[in-house]
Amino acid sequence: MKAKREALKSLFTAMKDGKVDEDIIELLLLINSIKGIYTTSSCSGRIDIIEEPALGAKPLSRWLVKVHRPIEFEEAKEALKDAKNGLIFLKSQPPIFHVVAEDIERAKKLHEIGLTSGFKYTTFKVISNRYLVEINATEYLTAPLGKDGKVLVSDDYLRFAIEVGNSMLKRSKGRLPRLGENFRKLREEVGEDGLFYELVRDFEIEKNWRIP
Amino acid sequence: MKAKREALKSLFTAMKDGKVDEDIIELLLLINSIKGIYTTSSCSGRIDIIEEPALGAKPLSRWLVKVHRPIEFEEAKEALKDAKNGLIFLKSQPPIFHVVAEDIERAKKLHEIGLTSGFKYTTFKVISNRYLVEINATEYLTAPLGKDGKVLVSDDYLRFAIEVGNSMLKRSKGRLPRLGENFRKLREEVGEDGLFYELVRDFEIEKNWRIP
Repeated sequence: MKAKREALKSLFTAMKDGKVDEDIIELLLLINSIKGIYTTSSCSGRIDIIEEPALGAKPLSRWLVKVHRPIEFEEAKEALKDAKNGLIFLKSQPPIFHVVAEDIERAKKLHEIGLTSGFKYTTFKVISNRYLVEINATEYLTAPLGKDGKVLVSDDYLRFAIEVGNSMLKRSKGRLPRLGENFRKLREEVGEDGLFYELVRDFEIEKNWRIP
Repeated sequence: MKAKREALKSLFTAMKDGKVDEDIIELLLLINSIKGIYTTSSCSGRIDIIEEPALGAKPLSRWLVKVHRPIEFEEAKEALKDAKNGLIFLKSQPPIFHVVAEDIERAKKLHEIGLTSGFKYTTFKVISNRYLVEINATEYLTAPLGKDGKVLVSDDYLRFAIEVGNSMLKRSKGRLPRLGENFRKLREEVGEDGLFYELVRDFEIEKNWRIP
């Protein structure tokens, strides 16, 4: 799979550049070690405060703060001082994994794994001849906080919204171990990918990370 | 397609019982008139205020108000008086269509239609041997308003959040005409389904609705 080779090179380079969320690296390595599948953009879940200049103008959005763990009230309050223009949102989103499967059988297995691991919004798309499975959950928060530099909520509300967002993040991240177990079972079933181990050696991944 | 026959009977019965959002009926009829596909649960987009007794306990959720058009501040304020227990959320969601395709080719076409009509979260699942395509968009709002019967936001914030939610709903519903045009093109391409017209006659659908 030429596409997998390119995807793995990308991933390993990004890992070495510190651009991949540490708390899903082990899971990403596990998934990529499996024959016939590989990950593309994935995220370990996050809470952020973001400004959207116009509804839907996503590319022009500006992050005020973004963390991959529960956020502190003080961080959020500090970040809001930078608000300038557009709608300000507090957003919480669960871990999301994008996994490409080379055939429909594997895609169905990935879909099954997502669902049985509690990631209820697991779906897929067909792109060219590949199946892109998105392992996604339901815990999304999108709370407007203000507009054009002006915060329209009280500190109490901010604390409350952060508490809700943090709870959602903890719930969804809490499923990662189960997802890991299910991927291990899949690996036992379909086998390992020699290409993965070859690139792990080329990129000396073992120096800094455990190979699952 | 036995499954399509059952689905159409369900839809037509629900339409006659007033249980289907009027503003997507024409689109639902158009989609179902196409050979090899049929709709299951679909929604024209909505804004609601909902109580969730425990995060994630969706079946126990209780709607305080639910509308398929922009909501008024007064309606929301009134509905909040009924809040009793659990987390109170203001939610806005775009139109969502669930369309079953009998083969992968049609599923891919549906996926394409969703995306080119601006429904950027269009995805699919494989259930048994059928492809369930979900035509979905990005405009979701999930704003916590309070907890256990207590509203924790000011009237100003409520007005603001409603304004954001209503804008999102208008944006996403604004794509329905384009979606309709794309489905008409699909019908010209793959053909009409005699079964649909047979059941339209059996259920006398023309008495109350225009057959597209």
